[in-house]
Amino acid sequence: MKVGDLAPNRARWLTGDSDLNGTVISCRARLARNVGFAPFSPMVTADDQDRVIEEVLKAAQSGRYMCDATFFKMNALQEEERQLLVERHLISPALAESTGQRGLLFNSDESLSIMINEEDHMRLQAILPGLQADEAWASVNALDGDVGTSLEYAYSDKWGFLTACPTNLGTGLRVSVLVHLPGLVLTDDMDRVKHGLTKMSFAVRGFYGEGSHPLGNLFQISNQATLGVKEQDIINRLCSITRQIIEYEEYAQQSLYKEAKAQVEDKVWRAFGLLSNARVLSSKDLMALVSAYRLGLSLGIVDHVDTGFVNRLMIETQPSHLQAFYGEELEPNERDVFRAELVRKYFKKTAE
Amino acid sequence: MKVGDLAPNRARWLTGDSDLNGTVISCRARLARNVGFAPFSPMVTADDQDRVIEEVLKAAQSGRYMCDATFFKMNALQEEERQLLVERHLISPALAESTGQRGLLFNSDESLSIMINEEDHMRLQAILPGLQADEAWASVNALDGDVGTSLEYAYSDKWGFLTACPTNLGTGLRVSVLVHLPGLVLTDDMDRVKHGLTKMSFAVRGFYGEGSHPLGNLFQISNQATLGVKEQDIINRLCSITRQIIEYEEYAQQSLYKEAKAQVEDKVWRAFGLLSNARVLSSKDLMALVSAYRLGLSLGIVDHVDTGFVNRLMIETQPSHLQAFYGEELEPNERDVFRAELVRKYFKKTAE
Repeated sequence: MKVGDLAPNRARWLTGDSDLNGTVISCRARLARNVGFAPFSPMVTADDQDRVIEEVLKAAQSGRYMCDATFFKMNALQEEERQLLVERHLISPALAESTGQRGLLFNSDESLSIMINEEDHMRLQAILPGLQADEAWASVNALDGDVGTSLEYAYSDKWGFLTACPTNLGTGLRVSVLVHLPGLVLTDDMDRVKHGLTKMSFAVRGFYGEGSHPLGNLFQISNQATLGVKEQDIINRLCSITRQIIEYEEYAQQSLYKEAKAQVEDKVWRAFGLLSNARVLSSKDLMALVSAYRLGLSLGIVDHVDTGFVNRLMIETQPSHLQAFYGEELEPNERDVFRAELVRKYFKKTAE
Repeated sequence: MKVGDLAPNRARWLTGDSDLNGTVISCRARLARNVGFAPFSPMVTADDQDRVIEEVLKAAQSGRYMCDATFFKMNALQEEERQLLVERHLISPALAESTGQRGLLFNSDESLSIMINEEDHMRLQAILPGLQADEAWASVNALDGDVGTSLEYAYSDKWGFLTACPTNLGTGLRVSVLVHLPGLVLTDDMDRVKHGLTKMSFAVRGFYGEGSHPLGNLFQISNQATLGVKEQDIINRLCSITRQIIEYEEYAQQSLYKEAKAQVEDKVWRAFGLLSNARVLSSKDLMALVSAYRLGLSLGIVDHVDTGFVNRLMIETQPSHLQAFYGEELEPNERDVFRAELVRKYFKKTAE
């Protein structure tokens, strides 16, 4: 399998299932794990890394969840290919950019993966559509148990799982949700929400771009504390926080819609008009239009396509995906033309 | 007949005939005439004006061209109704705003009309689609001959036709063309063109709004000199100047299209996407989008509708027209919603 073949793959986390009226795109649980037989990240040698890859693959592929999984070794890939894996959320930008012996193992619907030799020897990840935090946790926990039966983890009775960076110490668990909050951005409430979350030890990041108006009104919320908390408590807390934010968001959307019905509908329909007709679309343009269209889906203003379609549109129109679809290298301005063409095709296909 | 009934009327000058690839919307020839039996405009009394109306109507309605014409007396109309006549180019803003005994007589396809007691006792007007300057001149000349057989005009062998303002003295003829020049505006050549025209004694006005980027990229070009020139020479000169400008415009459009094909197509298709999907459209928005769409028609990029459709869209979405279609008074923000609704309906009807 070539990396480019993944471009049209229907990753499970993009299906829009359980997405609570379009607001929660996905939920991710990841565990940081290290093996006992090799030094940790800053001290590790290429030989150590090779052995880690070998042992992790052996353990994972002989288990229940990764027996049919695909493996890519990073330094065997082109930059474009690594970038495509980043765009699909299968690897971190850090893994894509780093040198050394690093790898990725993932299952066919891309819901389970292991980054090998990132900051830690292993980053086990489960990613599911919507607010399925319990399911994502159960899934990555099962994978961890599976791999852990044949690998000896670096573990301390006092500290729990040992990690390259102390911020991951203990459970090694980081859970995050990817949420769409156009209402809170439009009502200028996002700073207040961020402030509250930070005070409760949750991190909020604009998903694309930084600042108070990040691209596509997408935010990633994740736990900060990994030490001295039970895994289930981390999950429960993130879920309850997320549900609260969804409530705020729905309230903001409904208020906007009540106060300025025509303007909100105009925003949504203009987005549809542009997505299905534009001949040049920058990724910034696209993200803004997709956000407006998704708002229209949440408010029941439009229904040409569903949120799963919109999710895939967002992922599959990123530069390395476009390159993979096109087959050869595209100049940035050609990319904007090809992106617009692809988006029109997608909308047209759905309309048929 | 009520003024509002005119709103959906298919005025002949809007058909898009002979419009030279969308560039020349219409051509207008008007003659300033005064009768000998009443004082001129600043000195005229209401009684004089009443007599002028009476005599003009008698002369015109007993002739060949205005026997079935409609007559409106201005002070019998609501402001909205007078405004609708301005929007249809049947009367001047001056006639709409002025008090006193004033009137309008016009034929069923709105190609021939007489404003009574505007600046002059009579303003005879012929308006036709495209660059039909000879035809417009022939038409208004015939009407003038017809009316002039039973009315004694104020005429001097030395000066020709006498008018209230010396700028109309002599022939009393003003000819104008309404042209769409998006190419020259986009290439920043409009100031140069204007300068050249002014030097040749032609006036250029932004048709809606002023400044170098007038609404809709529409310009009206007209002769300044009326004295000491033959009528046919005025017509010939305006036509040859207009043909020259069309050449410049076509060159500008083709250069733009060659240099930035995707961007030009994007502009046109986005305009189509917005016109057929927006839920709120200001008249400024509409004029800009209609201009982009018309450019697309000229360049053969789109063909959902023809220029006649686009001309009517531009006229029939003006405030007083919207009011007439809606039936009751609209607030400005309701107007933008209703305008968008109307435009969508028009595009949808054509697509069927």
